[in-house]
Amino acid sequence: MHSPSRSVQAPIKSSLIDPDGGKLVDLVIPESERASRVLEAQALPKVSLSKIDFEWVHVISEGWASPLKGFMREDEYLQSLHFNSLRMKDGSVVNMSLPIVLAIDDETKERIGSSTNVGLVGPNGDLIAILRSIEIYKHNKEERIARTWGTTAPGLPYVEEVITSAGNWLIGGDLEVLEPIKYNDGLDNYRLSPQQLRKEFDSRQADAVFAFQLRNPVHNGHALLMNDTRRRLLEMGYKNPILLLHPLGGFTKADDVPLDVRMEQHSKVLEDGILDPETTIVAIFPSPMHYAGPTEVQWHAKARINAGANFYIVGRDPAGMGHPTENRDLYDPDHGKKVLSMAPGLEKLNILPFRVAAYDTVHKKMAFFDPSRAKEFLFISGTKMRNFAKTGENPPDGFMCPGGWKVLVNYYESLQTEEGSQQPAVLSA
Amino acid sequence: MHSPSRSVQAPIKSSLIDPDGGKLVDLVIPESERASRVLEAQALPKVSLSKIDFEWVHVISEGWASPLKGFMREDEYLQSLHFNSLRMKDGSVVNMSLPIVLAIDDETKERIGSSTNVGLVGPNGDLIAILRSIEIYKHNKEERIARTWGTTAPGLPYVEEVITSAGNWLIGGDLEVLEPIKYNDGLDNYRLSPQQLRKEFDSRQADAVFAFQLRNPVHNGHALLMNDTRRRLLEMGYKNPILLLHPLGGFTKADDVPLDVRMEQHSKVLEDGILDPETTIVAIFPSPMHYAGPTEVQWHAKARINAGANFYIVGRDPAGMGHPTENRDLYDPDHGKKVLSMAPGLEKLNILPFRVAAYDTVHKKMAFFDPSRAKEFLFISGTKMRNFAKTGENPPDGFMCPGGWKVLVNYYESLQTEEGSQQPAVLSA
Repeated sequence: MHSPSRSVQAPIKSSLIDPDGGKLVDLVIPESERASRVLEAQALPKVSLSKIDFEWVHVISEGWASPLKGFMREDEYLQSLHFNSLRMKDGSVVNMSLPIVLAIDDETKERIGSSTNVGLVGPNGDLIAILRSIEIYKHNKEERIARTWGTTAPGLPYVEEVITSAGNWLIGGDLEVLEPIKYNDGLDNYRLSPQQLRKEFDSRQADAVFAFQLRNPVHNGHALLMNDTRRRLLEMGYKNPILLLHPLGGFTKADDVPLDVRMEQHSKVLEDGILDPETTIVAIFPSPMHYAGPTEVQWHAKARINAGANFYIVGRDPAGMGHPTENRDLYDPDHGKKVLSMAPGLEKLNILPFRVAAYDTVHKKMAFFDPSRAKEFLFISGTKMRNFAKTGENPPDGFMCPGGWKVLVNYYESLQTEEGSQQPAVLSA
Repeated sequence: MHSPSRSVQAPIKSSLIDPDGGKLVDLVIPESERASRVLEAQALPKVSLSKIDFEWVHVISEGWASPLKGFMREDEYLQSLHFNSLRMKDGSVVNMSLPIVLAIDDETKERIGSSTNVGLVGPNGDLIAILRSIEIYKHNKEERIARTWGTTAPGLPYVEEVITSAGNWLIGGDLEVLEPIKYNDGLDNYRLSPQQLRKEFDSRQADAVFAFQLRNPVHNGHALLMNDTRRRLLEMGYKNPILLLHPLGGFTKADDVPLDVRMEQHSKVLEDGILDPETTIVAIFPSPMHYAGPTEVQWHAKARINAGANFYIVGRDPAGMGHPTENRDLYDPDHGKKVLSMAPGLEKLNILPFRVAAYDTVHKKMAFFDPSRAKEFLFISGTKMRNFAKTGENPPDGFMCPGGWKVLVNYYESLQTEEGSQQPAVLSA
């Protein structure tokens, strides 16, 4: 058996480890060349991007998926689907667990004809990128879904949002983004690229960076894990471990808390001193969410390596959800960390599995679950937490800092004053 | 793009290449220890094997799946399912694309209790092996099927035969087989182990071994490919290329031609001089068939490497079949060779893709398909061939040697004289 602890290595003596050698692709065209490329792009056949396609353009352009230089061609797609990794020309292997692909329909394929390059048009109609040396190949949706999610049951959020209505072709190629991707939603200052994050870690003289991926509000159980990780890293000999609190900013399912609310909640958690602002960087991870469990957790970790993280915190059932048609978790809750610890291309990542945190009803705080007094612990799932906030009921004292909780309550109150029909559906149990 | 031709390396100067360093696991207990192990096995909790479980015991025990030493434990199962490969302790990667697992039901799990070893009982009631240091883990059938086949559509032959009715647990452990596996069906002399095959190649002083996997009768199109491969290898500088004609001997779907009939047919092909007996070894590959296309072709190639082959012939849609519920091939016919050329752990294998052979109606023989005169070619699928034989209609002259064809006709005639209800169903289009 692989022991997850095998991956916790000796302390790093000098400056920040850079597991991928620091070479990130940067696919944004230099300003000096912009005007000529825009002219070129205008003359090309166009492909329209959905909101989520646009998020992937953002992800690729900043190097989160590096060494990927654009949407996958078929050889990359097949390796991702079958091996969750890519073999590079020098024989090295990089992790690449999710197919990062762009679908087009028959009519678009027809319109592209024999053109080798296409222009990509964002959801608001702006020309945002060129895709070069394109390759168009078949989009077998059933196979893609089965191999990515391990199920083809109806009701997978990403499948319903993106794949079901997508075209029967995929178009791969090298991406050139005309200017840095912005959303103009008041949160762009949180959208630090991997390069910017690396610079920030350097300027803070981090000797360890531990990343925490989340798509939910931060409760005190999460904070316990993060603070405990810092303690462990200090014990291991690191002098200045920095936490990358890295909420996912792309597509999430309808009943997840929206990004702007979560960002406000995260700010309160730092204001209230639950996490230490001196040793924490809060930034947005621009990827859409697949809810593909063990397959997706590899992507979540790999992208953070690209941003300079060398420790990754993984808990129960990462990127998991309830089975869409059966009354059980879609994935074995332990498979995420097991698969992550064995994943090709992630051998150098230090994986930090942790015990489950739950509400200790005796000490009235979030604590690591102690099986010897199991009855004294209360498990509060994301769904349960959202239900508390929706119904206006307070969670037990010590579950979340008051400032953060208020943000959630306000959000759900604002939903209830809107039309009932706009209330998001609860997809997972 | 990966070019399949990248893998055709320079000719080997000296004796047979041994891509895996010659270390095969041998899991058959030495005769001197047999009596004591049988006594031990008799006292252990028992697990009953189906016919196909028994075939896997055979496969594992002879080292076809080496370095696998038994049925997969969970860490091997997860790596197989997610990465089609296993990372060894020394950091090397071996290909392992199919989950080789043993399912048990709740009652058997209960009966095993806390025992660390179990005895395996063959389909005829004989105690045949010990499984040591067992690990029992959950059998998520849906996930296994989706990740192995890329579909969960009903009607996959291996799924219906093996998985649907299987228990909800998998049991892994180290295998010790009490004596070499035999079937006593008159074909055991064809069942050469990887070790025996390697010896045979050595004794024939082969400097290249090219393997041809098949589950159908050999027609002259197959023979063309095999003879053409030999020609190419001689051109590349090999002096004594040996063909391993290696029909699959385990489970096949109901409308495939049974093993004994195929073996008789293959004999006729050699007798009739279509293949040269001097440079051909016919042996049975004991694996059951998954019909899992690009995932399975890796297994087919990997097992032959273990037997000493260093060239692998791969054609259109290897290990493929019709989609069980849709009117199309289950897999893209080109994906098999693409995935094989990119598969982790198979980098050293020389893959020989070939052009499609079809019946040339002008020259009245099987020939490589020439797209410039496409209309003069006739494609005769396995299904079409079987239908010819069933209806007693003769295929075009030059499709198959007369001796071989007669074997098939006799087989289908014998079926028709039996009850209609015993006639195998046609599963694939």
